[in-house]
Amino acid sequence: MDNDYLIKKAFSLAKKGRNLTGLNPMVGALIIKSGKIIGAGFHSQYGGPHAEVNAILDAESKGFKVMGSTLICSLEPCCHNNKKTPPCTDLIIKKGIKNLYYGALDLNPFVKGKGIEKLKNNNIKTTFIDYQQTNDELNRGSITVLTKKRPYVTLKICMTLDGMIYNQKTKNNSIGDSNQLKHANNLRRVHDSVLVGVETIIKDNPKLTFRGRGSKNFVQPRPVILDSNLRIPLDSHVIKFGNSPIIFTKKDKNSIKYRKLISLGCSVVSLQSLKPQLVLKNLVKNNLQATLIEGGARIFSSFLTTNMFDELVLYYSSNFMGTSGLNIGRSINKDYKIRKKMQLVKNIGNSVMMVFK
Amino acid sequence: MDNDYLIKKAFSLAKKGRNLTGLNPMVGALIIKSGKIIGAGFHSQYGGPHAEVNAILDAESKGFKVMGSTLICSLEPCCHNNKKTPPCTDLIIKKGIKNLYYGALDLNPFVKGKGIEKLKNNNIKTTFIDYQQTNDELNRGSITVLTKKRPYVTLKICMTLDGMIYNQKTKNNSIGDSNQLKHANNLRRVHDSVLVGVETIIKDNPKLTFRGRGSKNFVQPRPVILDSNLRIPLDSHVIKFGNSPIIFTKKDKNSIKYRKLISLGCSVVSLQSLKPQLVLKNLVKNNLQATLIEGGARIFSSFLTTNMFDELVLYYSSNFMGTSGLNIGRSINKDYKIRKKMQLVKNIGNSVMMVFK
Repeated sequence: MDNDYLIKKAFSLAKKGRNLTGLNPMVGALIIKSGKIIGAGFHSQYGGPHAEVNAILDAESKGFKVMGSTLICSLEPCCHNNKKTPPCTDLIIKKGIKNLYYGALDLNPFVKGKGIEKLKNNNIKTTFIDYQQTNDELNRGSITVLTKKRPYVTLKICMTLDGMIYNQKTKNNSIGDSNQLKHANNLRRVHDSVLVGVETIIKDNPKLTFRGRGSKNFVQPRPVILDSNLRIPLDSHVIKFGNSPIIFTKKDKNSIKYRKLISLGCSVVSLQSLKPQLVLKNLVKNNLQATLIEGGARIFSSFLTTNMFDELVLYYSSNFMGTSGLNIGRSINKDYKIRKKMQLVKNIGNSVMMVFK
Repeated sequence: MDNDYLIKKAFSLAKKGRNLTGLNPMVGALIIKSGKIIGAGFHSQYGGPHAEVNAILDAESKGFKVMGSTLICSLEPCCHNNKKTPPCTDLIIKKGIKNLYYGALDLNPFVKGKGIEKLKNNNIKTTFIDYQQTNDELNRGSITVLTKKRPYVTLKICMTLDGMIYNQKTKNNSIGDSNQLKHANNLRRVHDSVLVGVETIIKDNPKLTFRGRGSKNFVQPRPVILDSNLRIPLDSHVIKFGNSPIIFTKKDKNSIKYRKLISLGCSVVSLQSLKPQLVLKNLVKNNLQATLIEGGARIFSSFLTTNMFDELVLYYSSNFMGTSGLNIGRSINKDYKIRKKMQLVKNIGNSVMMVFK
């Protein structure tokens, strides 16, 4: 078992925590003794035990003693107190673990090397196996919450070559081909929330769920709907699906619809305005760290022109819609130059995907 | 000197005939004797001598005898009589040339293997070095004239990510960045004519010339303007440049503007309608074999929706224009699915280029 193999295994474990860790990073850990994996764990609940703790508990529950063992962590163990659980470093020291291999530094300013330092000072040998990029990509959500006080935001739209997102004549909203749709659906797998405007709910009645490979026991992203006047139909798929959708509205708590939605399991949040910054701040309050914004045009342009996104994903299907089309830019009132770098452009079926980030 | 080297050299010669061969293919030829190139030529004038003739003349003018020599041709020598010059095969036989290496079959049904057959029947050894694709790409213009009775048509447009081609508020028509503009300008190098609507002339006053590397002694493409009512300003760059622009109009020959334009060196053509098919047919009458269509929106959509193009080149600059923009699809009245294959998608500076053909 080489180090790369073990670190990768730790990251595989980490990913099991997707959509379970709230604002925390996904972390995986392994305990190695006499060349064998004796324990494994991952962070699986916001406020619950960290990966290191779960791995130690796993080993001990099988009758192993972790004294003198090696700990493999995808991320630097925590060492700070101002949070729900005690520092992992203390437990590692107490349990007599002798070696640590870790894949990334924790960018949280309360940790950021201090965890490693503490372990070193307690005669634990620490070795960095550089998987920082893997971690930073996996945990872009929790990192963005730390650095920008808002979730990581992916702004996604699918349109025709002339920029149309909806056919006003046929009322047809289906733009992409099946390959493109599948590809776009996969984006939902790596976000803990999917945000749309109420117009999209009314027109398309989407489920907003990830339906690709591995979707069976998948913890689905939470639907988030911007709905100033609570126009959302009570029989919408997002409500019926029961994944406690968050509805942001300007209506107050005393409106009948508000109370009705609450009774149906929705989390309705009254805000003075539905400006992107305010909405995103409130998503953090709801322990969400990565939001996929799926339109429509008005939502798209408000997040675009206020620069409230980290990644822009555009799909172009290979057709023109012309005068029947509703243009993606119909709510954009000024020339908007994308300041991010184009990272990727490629064919997806008959469509083209462009990614700016 | 291996065969590939020689055939490539023949193609290099062929390219010197760009925009000089009218409806004919570009062809280059070399004469080899005792391992040395003793003559070289290319087809350099519509109705003038073919490449083979020029190569033989070149050798003889230097005092060489071509008897017993080897002829290298980018394209199969012609063998038919229903044209301006006598068959090259006859001259090759008469001159006692012993070997022929050729890079491509001539797709002209009057030739297409018959030239080779005739040479074989006269005891000339013929060898095919497969550069058919190179030839067919280089001579896509003359081949399209043969097969479709119209020029090869490239439909090109540059737009913003939301499909806008012009800013109506600022009257700004500059969409792409400098890299994109340079790239798009290079397309003019491989077309013998550049077609635009009169709106584009009025709004942008373009020169429609190729200005990239090698433009110094370049035979510029001919400007073609669709102008129903002869609104073209007399001081337009395309007129002042003096490359006898072709103006298609619905106005008749007696109008003052018509006569004025003729006096300024324009070739004004009265047509009953400016439908793509009719316009293209008339371009063939003007000995043009490859047309680059550069917009605006109305021209673009008329060629697009009638499928009167062989290649579609779309550039997307990395910005949105929104409500100030003029959309490329504003004259497209139905959903138009592109039936061609996407051949290429790539970054050009901050823009994306897509090619369907």
